[in-house]
Amino acid sequence: MIHELQRIEIERVLRSEVFGHLGCHAGDRTYVVPMTYVYDGASIIAQTGEGQKVAMMRDNPNVCFEVDHVDADGAWESAIIQGRFEELSGEPARAALRALIERLDLIHHQRGEMSPRGAGRTAPGGPPGSRREVMFRIIVEQMTGRSETVPWIPEVRLEAGDEVC
Amino acid sequence: MIHELQRIEIERVLRSEVFGHLGCHAGDRTYVVPMTYVYDGASIIAQTGEGQKVAMMRDNPNVCFEVDHVDADGAWESAIIQGRFEELSGEPARAALRALIERLDLIHHQRGEMSPRGAGRTAPGGPPGSRREVMFRIIVEQMTGRSETVPWIPEVRLEAGDEVC
Repeated sequence: MIHELQRIEIERVLRSEVFGHLGCHAGDRTYVVPMTYVYDGASIIAQTGEGQKVAMMRDNPNVCFEVDHVDADGAWESAIIQGRFEELSGEPARAALRALIERLDLIHHQRGEMSPRGAGRTAPGGPPGSRREVMFRIIVEQMTGRSETVPWIPEVRLEAGDEVC
Repeated sequence: MIHELQRIEIERVLRSEVFGHLGCHAGDRTYVVPMTYVYDGASIIAQTGEGQKVAMMRDNPNVCFEVDHVDADGAWESAIIQGRFEELSGEPARAALRALIERLDLIHHQRGEMSPRGAGRTAPGGPPGSRREVMFRIIVEQMTGRSETVPWIPEVRLEAGDEVC
């Protein structure tokens, strides 16, 4: 059975993960990309290279950011943010990068494994010849969340399959 | 270093996973949700309950579906589909549900763990009082993919952090 998450539960999901999916839309096209992030209590902070998603978010700053977590038993939680893209520069960009790096370091040490997908690997500006890195935040305007604690039961599925065969 | 995936590599990602993220957009709102799926070579097949995302896809059938895979060493692959939502009914809906159930059963047995997030647990129509289940496909119009094989190196990140402190 699916439950709506309370604000405190949604925030726990956002603070416990480092990996989510950004959804943006511009020019009649919707785009979903995986990203590492850190949540600071008001915004999702992330870094990416100049490219399609940055161009789309500059065009239409109203974006979605989704974070989920699945247990080994199949129980899951999902947090969905509606927010506003804001590009960072100067000291706010440097502070955001430091927060992201600290978060990834902490997770790296806690979990003994990592999938940071490039975020934080390059300082703003990057090495010569590389594409420019863009620090940004998604200012949270609305957040919702759902969870399902009942694990998946194969027998139920097979009965369902029988019904439709 | 990030590489563009060839069509055959993108298809391998789509066929090897059972879990992706759907992005849809309607009424000035972008929405990203996790979903189990099966890829049949031309479409993403999935099931969901009547609700916000179905209403949005009926309003604007141009959607995005993203699938990614991360290895323990941090290497990752991501496939992004641009496609068109199409609702299924009658025999095509029943065939789609069977394909989805078969795929989830196979993965369940292969991996010894599962996170199907409800898909296929309820036959179309569902038990009395439940919300109606909707079978649909996303007809692939365009697919792109990227990978990064170089694992994350903390020292590189720390150097990047030093530069900006």
